[in-house]
Amino acid sequence: MIDLRSDTVTKPTTDMRQAAFDAVVGDDVYEEDPTVIELEKLAADKLGKEKAMFVPSGTQGNQIAVVTHCQSGQEIIVEETSHIFYNEGATIAAFAGVQPRTIAGERGVMDPQAVKSAIRADDIHFPETGLICLENTHNRAGGAIVPLENMQEIYNIAQQHGIPVHLDGARLFNASVASGIDVKDYAACTDSVQFCLSKGLGAPVGSIIAGSAAFIDKARKWRKRFGGGMRQAGIIAAPGLIALRTMVDRLADDHANATLLEDGLRAIPGVTMENTVETNILFVNTEKAGLTGEQFSEGLKSKGVLANPAGPYTVRFVTHLDVDREQIKLAIKAVEEVVGEK
Amino acid sequence: MIDLRSDTVTKPTTDMRQAAFDAVVGDDVYEEDPTVIELEKLAADKLGKEKAMFVPSGTQGNQIAVVTHCQSGQEIIVEETSHIFYNEGATIAAFAGVQPRTIAGERGVMDPQAVKSAIRADDIHFPETGLICLENTHNRAGGAIVPLENMQEIYNIAQQHGIPVHLDGARLFNASVASGIDVKDYAACTDSVQFCLSKGLGAPVGSIIAGSAAFIDKARKWRKRFGGGMRQAGIIAAPGLIALRTMVDRLADDHANATLLEDGLRAIPGVTMENTVETNILFVNTEKAGLTGEQFSEGLKSKGVLANPAGPYTVRFVTHLDVDREQIKLAIKAVEEVVGEK
Amino acid sequence: MIDLRSDTVTKPTTDMRQAAFDAVVGDDVYEEDPTVIELEKLAADKLGKEKAMFVPSGTQGNQIAVVTHCQSGQEIIVEETSHIFYNEGATIAAFAGVQPRTIAGERGVMDPQAVKSAIRADDIHFPETGLICLENTHNRAGGAIVPLENMQEIYNIAQQHGIPVHLDGARLFNASVASGIDVKDYAACTDSVQFCLSKGLGAPVGSIIAGSAAFIDKARKWRKRFGGGMRQAGIIAAPGLIALRTMVDRLADDHANATLLEDGLRAIPGVTMENTVETNILFVNTEKAGLTGEQFSEGLKSKGVLANPAGPYTVRFVTHLDVDREQIKLAIKAVEEVVGEK
Amino acid sequence: MIDLRSDTVTKPTTDMRQAAFDAVVGDDVYEEDPTVIELEKLAADKLGKEKAMFVPSGTQGNQIAVVTHCQSGQEIIVEETSHIFYNEGATIAAFAGVQPRTIAGERGVMDPQAVKSAIRADDIHFPETGLICLENTHNRAGGAIVPLENMQEIYNIAQQHGIPVHLDGARLFNASVASGIDVKDYAACTDSVQFCLSKGLGAPVGSIIAGSAAFIDKARKWRKRFGGGMRQAGIIAAPGLIALRTMVDRLADDHANATLLEDGLRAIPGVTMENTVETNILFVNTEKAGLTGEQFSEGLKSKGVLANPAGPYTVRFVTHLDVDREQIKLAIKAVEEVVGEK
Repeated sequence: MIDLRSDTVTKPTTDMRQAAFDAVVGDDVYEEDPTVIELEKLAADKLGKEKAMFVPSGTQGNQIAVVTHCQSGQEIIVEETSHIFYNEGATIAAFAGVQPRTIAGERGVMDPQAVKSAIRADDIHFPETGLICLENTHNRAGGAIVPLENMQEIYNIAQQHGIPVHLDGARLFNASVASGIDVKDYAACTDSVQFCLSKGLGAPVGSIIAGSAAFIDKARKWRKRFGGGMRQAGIIAAPGLIALRTMVDRLADDHANATLLEDGLRAIPGVTMENTVETNILFVNTEKAGLTGEQFSEGLKSKGVLANPAGPYTVRFVTHLDVDREQIKLAIKAVEEVVGEK
Repeated sequence: MIDLRSDTVTKPTTDMRQAAFDAVVGDDVYEEDPTVIELEKLAADKLGKEKAMFVPSGTQGNQIAVVTHCQSGQEIIVEETSHIFYNEGATIAAFAGVQPRTIAGERGVMDPQAVKSAIRADDIHFPETGLICLENTHNRAGGAIVPLENMQEIYNIAQQHGIPVHLDGARLFNASVASGIDVKDYAACTDSVQFCLSKGLGAPVGSIIAGSAAFIDKARKWRKRFGGGMRQAGIIAAPGLIALRTMVDRLADDHANATLLEDGLRAIPGVTMENTVETNILFVNTEKAGLTGEQFSEGLKSKGVLANPAGPYTVRFVTHLDVDREQIKLAIKAVEEVVGEK
Repeated sequence: MIDLRSDTVTKPTTDMRQAAFDAVVGDDVYEEDPTVIELEKLAADKLGKEKAMFVPSGTQGNQIAVVTHCQSGQEIIVEETSHIFYNEGATIAAFAGVQPRTIAGERGVMDPQAVKSAIRADDIHFPETGLICLENTHNRAGGAIVPLENMQEIYNIAQQHGIPVHLDGARLFNASVASGIDVKDYAACTDSVQFCLSKGLGAPVGSIIAGSAAFIDKARKWRKRFGGGMRQAGIIAAPGLIALRTMVDRLADDHANATLLEDGLRAIPGVTMENTVETNILFVNTEKAGLTGEQFSEGLKSKGVLANPAGPYTVRFVTHLDVDREQIKLAIKAVEEVVGEK
Repeated sequence: MIDLRSDTVTKPTTDMRQAAFDAVVGDDVYEEDPTVIELEKLAADKLGKEKAMFVPSGTQGNQIAVVTHCQSGQEIIVEETSHIFYNEGATIAAFAGVQPRTIAGERGVMDPQAVKSAIRADDIHFPETGLICLENTHNRAGGAIVPLENMQEIYNIAQQHGIPVHLDGARLFNASVASGIDVKDYAACTDSVQFCLSKGLGAPVGSIIAGSAAFIDKARKWRKRFGGGMRQAGIIAAPGLIALRTMVDRLADDHANATLLEDGLRAIPGVTMENTVETNILFVNTEKAGLTGEQFSEGLKSKGVLANPAGPYTVRFVTHLDVDREQIKLAIKAVEEVVGEK
């Protein structure tokens, strides 16, 4: 099977498995796991933040950030198709007690003036704006890169209003590799950042959340409440270290493969592209082929290619570590056949 | 002062005060206040619902409905400038643990297909859609009337998906009087309705929430949690009864006055109308006059007219029981002067 | 019917009704109701606090205090039969997200050392202690008076730990009249106080919450979220003013009547007293009479006396404004008959 | 260092590391990780439950159970020193919106009649009782075993009232090995069970939550909200499988070592035992030695023994996989020296 459903499906490499085998560990609830400490230090350094913390998932990283920054009864500004709002089970409301104020972005990029207008005035009827969330790359916008200037502009507005900024950087390294901009520069426009060691970096489990020392110290207790306090977590932090040290540059291959896929599919009548590939995600529209996303996805599966429906007439393809150039070519062929058979 | 800030500023009439004086009362937490019971019965009858419950405010009525219908971690579909989302301090998130899914309406009216598309599929990343909220008349859309057909269409969709519908009918009687459609017909497209006895109906305090007997029985305990369980509430329910019995038809006067105001203001260069009056609310744009909403409002105040700024260049006028035709004419003159002085 | 179920059942006096009729009112959400403002000022003065705020119920006053003082994930120290913990529907958890740490009191009075021990150390597993709650008089302890010295001692401990203290003083004036201690002195041991204008003071609706100006300003927005923002609330604040001005001293009569009742019942074999009357509440044990609380209550009802069962073999009697000496004597006779008939 | 702070400090064995190295993995959010599936199946079988689910920590397992069983505004019955109430950061309130009703147990064992009395009657002031929680072995009661008969009695009461029962069985296998009672029999008295693969079973990370298929299906979405949805979780599930297959029987050694420790310490004047060892936990009182728990713990540390203070004059010792007989003897000597030096 050629699995293009998500970059979350990557299997850990032998190096990662060996690192798990060899990991020096301790009880991380006591903050005594040397491997976790090493990973957290490396991650903080890479992002230019004071401290970082290892968490079992990107969702937990994002949600800890929200509840650590905000108080119940506040509002957070988020892009209307952002993962935090759209894909995390209303946890911002259920656990943090905050309400999303959504802004329709262009390719996932929010207009800074729209963000500014959405900040609440002081009025007894209004929640206070407690946080602004960014997502880079933006998943549902097709792995789109949010420009650094946009982030800077929003961060300036946020600081003028005393509002913290959180970055859902689940795929921040994809943005960095594709744009040539250091992740530090992106992180400089935020008060907290979450990025995933799984996904494109290929680690089996885990994400990082980073920010000021005070922020992470407060976040650590919230991690306990979320049940993210793990014991000999070095076993998974060790592969995470490999991921962070050796897997960043190779994201360029995923991007090249995604472009290869896009080019191939653009040549096939019956499918149209919903985005131009910027990193490793491509949304394909199947309506002209007379197939729903669901049907299209089923058709592909029967030909050995997995891709998730992502809308009534949309299928999403994501490239990653475990898919190579040859497989991309086979996937293009499979699409051709599915369209042809209709 | 001619007070056009809101229909919430109305003073109780002498009849209402007399009713408060004469009210037969009991302890309503024991459900023994005959006046409250009478009011709740009358309200339920007017709406064609099994049961109704008296609450101290429209906000409490709406929020009790949300928490009674929903469970924490769900999502509710609401119009993006609706009161429940925009003006109630993120209480849906803080107390009910639900997240709003906002839909941009046309004059406050949501496209039923947009509502349908917003209903969540069954997916581990998604909150379940727990409620659809309507608002009629729609305050921030300028007292706009949501057509009955639109409500019916949305209600059909909701029922097909097993999702309840709540109507924020704070000004439902304005809709009814203006459209000639019985409030029962509007209420028939809902599982619960809230309407205000204060506002246009002129009672000093209180709102009604109505629905099935099972819904109200469950809602009663939530009212206690909200601190809406009052003792000899007949003192305020009695004016509420007068309001419901005698104040509905005269809403037509408020509507006529609002149209009079609109006609007068349309003749003044320098101000433009942001809505066409449908009931008792008019939003006026002050940008051409070179005045912010704030400045415009200050100018009017100095001439004995109160109206609230409602945006950078917007001022809202609301007609009600305590403003008559002559005062509307004076208000028009005041606007003329404010514009002229600039 | 002689209604000894609760002091919440009192009917407003003619003076109170007249005050409602005459009340000068305004829109209290705009903080423009002169009668509400007058009441809030008087209440703050009486308690020696900077500011006070009118709310529709004692439950709402208590719950606003909890959510204003605390943050989600904290713990509050409360007596194990206190109203805030026992009788308010778990609202502290549902709305404020805080967990009660209960301490078994002696007659509702918590041992200061027990309070001190219950304050949480700094540990990643522990919630922070966010509030200490007192109740005076203590309802379920039989209207027991919490001694001023006890409150002072607990307040000292609280201040040493930087933890605020809230007083549920629903019946604080009963404590004051019985002990001869000014409510100001009790209030001086707290950061916030709630007391009821209904109950012994006889107003139809409403309670007061008081504290520092900063506290009340923050609490005001939470009142809006609870739906306690009322419009022409002067209609009920006016009777509240009468209550606060004229009803305090007469609480002594209720206390005398409760003692009269206690003395009478002590002479009846078959019933035993669960508390010694200190103010206006008496818990009577019915086990020796071979009757459950429920059966005993039913028996009394058939003889024209109402009293609530409050445990398997317990019935509670509460004296108030609408019960006089003669009715107490009749109630004693009724008890005698119920016991005799068994 | 001889680390007797907790059984959470155990390092994974070489077998476990090898299992991590070899693990066949997939994306567990898609429910495609064969190793996780195998672990969940084995765990469900061992407990006699329909389904089980892997979570990153015991706290997350417990909290998912609470929020899956309950609704906001309910009350849960818990022992007053239970981990769920005492050591989990008030998460039951913060995330599930429920309030604990604590019952003082005898050695962590709640009197079934006390549980029955704590179940709430139907009353508008009361939260509904939504869950009863048990803990076996009971950590803060010194690893005490809750008798099966007690659990059965409480479960019968729960079923009569339609209330689910959750078992915090973080150390359930310790109870089973010490009592000779199958974990299935304990689990039969519950609707859901959580047990830890870390702690005595020695796995590096993770716990299991089990129950009916319907319960686990619902719990899975809550796990996502808690951020417990991990990707190639087989890497940690594989050591968990080793733990569950090979580490249960050896818990008897930990118990023998704890008894050895107890016997040794009982011979030392200056320390007294706060519990009789039943499994692998011993609480030692240091007051007679004139040392606080903190000081005692420091003294031990200087002699190469780690044990956590657990009260003003209490130190807790926990035996586990990484401590053998010889080390226990050294620990006894260290205590002797610390007491002697005072």
